Amino acid sequence: MRLAELSDRTGVAVATLKYYQREGLLHPGRTLSRTQADYDESHVERVALVRALIEVGGMSLASVGRVIDVITSPGKQRLEVLEAAQQTLAREGSTPATCDDAHVRRGRVHEWIARRGWEVNPTDPFIEDLERAWAACDSVGIGLDEERMDRYADQMEGVAEVDVRSVPAEPQAAVRHVVLGTVLVDPVLVALRRLAQQHVSRTMERVDP
Amino acid sequence: MRLAELSDRTGVAVATLKYYQREGLLHPGRTLSRTQADYDESHVERVALVRALIEVGGMSLASVGRVIDVITSPGKQRLEVLEAAQQTLAREGSTPATCDDAHVRRGRVHEWIARRGWEVNPTDPFIEDLERAWAACDSVGIGLDEERMDRYADQMEGVAEVDVRSVPAEPQAAVRHVVLGTVLVDPVLVALRRLAQQHVSRTMERVDP
Repeated sequence: MRLAELSDRTGVAVATLKYYQREGLLHPGRTLSRTQADYDESHVERVALVRALIEVGGMSLASVGRVIDVITSPGKQRLEVLEAAQQTLAREGSTPATCDDAHVRRGRVHEWIARRGWEVNPTDPFIEDLERAWAACDSVGIGLDEERMDRYADQMEGVAEVDVRSVPAEPQAAVRHVVLGTVLVDPVLVALRRLAQQHVSRTMERVDP
Repeated sequence: MRLAELSDRTGVAVATLKYYQREGLLHPGRTLSRTQADYDESHVERVALVRALIEVGGMSLASVGRVIDVITSPGKQRLEVLEAAQQTLAREGSTPATCDDAHVRRGRVHEWIARRGWEVNPTDPFIEDLERAWAACDSVGIGLDEERMDRYADQMEGVAEVDVRSVPAEPQAAVRHVVLGTVLVDPVLVALRRLAQQHVSRTMERVDP
């Protein structure tokens, strides 16, 4: 198909598609002449991927580029690519580095993880993110004590089991699945939490008014 | 305390504190003279709140202002204020309205909610958010079928139970808790999900290499 048809199929303006090509987010079509190229289903899929990462994942174009690099790089060992994928995602959408550190209790998350018995990389950037997010709750009096953190962790362990079990065996597909599933399922979970809060609070009000 | 001391206590620059005052995010101090005012612990708390909403919650200044309006408005009935609080949060940080709607299957979430038996407001904006987030997963082939959605929903129901049980009984405190707990616990859950994924995938690789 020509670029105009790719635009119709994807709902993305021709100028934007050309911009994605210049930024390396959309691979070139098959050259037909000096001014025309032919596009196929792989281009339709790629445009859907770029839009989803930007609009639902809230990623910058630079981050989308990094994700596409990981997804399209030649396959290595399964665990190796999975860790590379997680590293690419690390800090994406996380607490900005400018966050006020006054209330952050360093080491608390390490102690909590050790007590829980979670096997995680001790230098993982999400440990610092968790420290900051936990400190932010404390600083406004939300009262996130260790018991409540444990109960949230129980639930997120259940989420992670669903996540990990659904990863395909083939390495290339696995990386794609991990990267996209991590970024794009977060908004699903946020919306489910809001709706579940409504259901639970309505149900509880009736039982215990 | 004077403004300079408030700045020291909170780690926020004097110019920024003045800006918060002009924007109505920080209430005035007690006037001492034409150029000086006295600030107290309520100001320290408010600055911590504003910083947390901006830095961890990722909210705009305008949204922070709306949250503060809800938190500081005179109390009504408990359920009434809780619903007002949820409405204030609705769409905050949600999928932008520019999202490509081509793949969104309208009504799917309503059917799924009905089947699940969740009692939620049928016009709640998070229903539309969930539709878009679900469609985004489908459009890139993440394969979020209804069974997997149900398993995620089971976990988020557990999260919501923890959320709702921790809400204080007094209406003013309840609103504050719901608004802040909703915005500031999301980043905690995201970080927990990433760490739990690591733990679960390492544990599973060993059991089933």
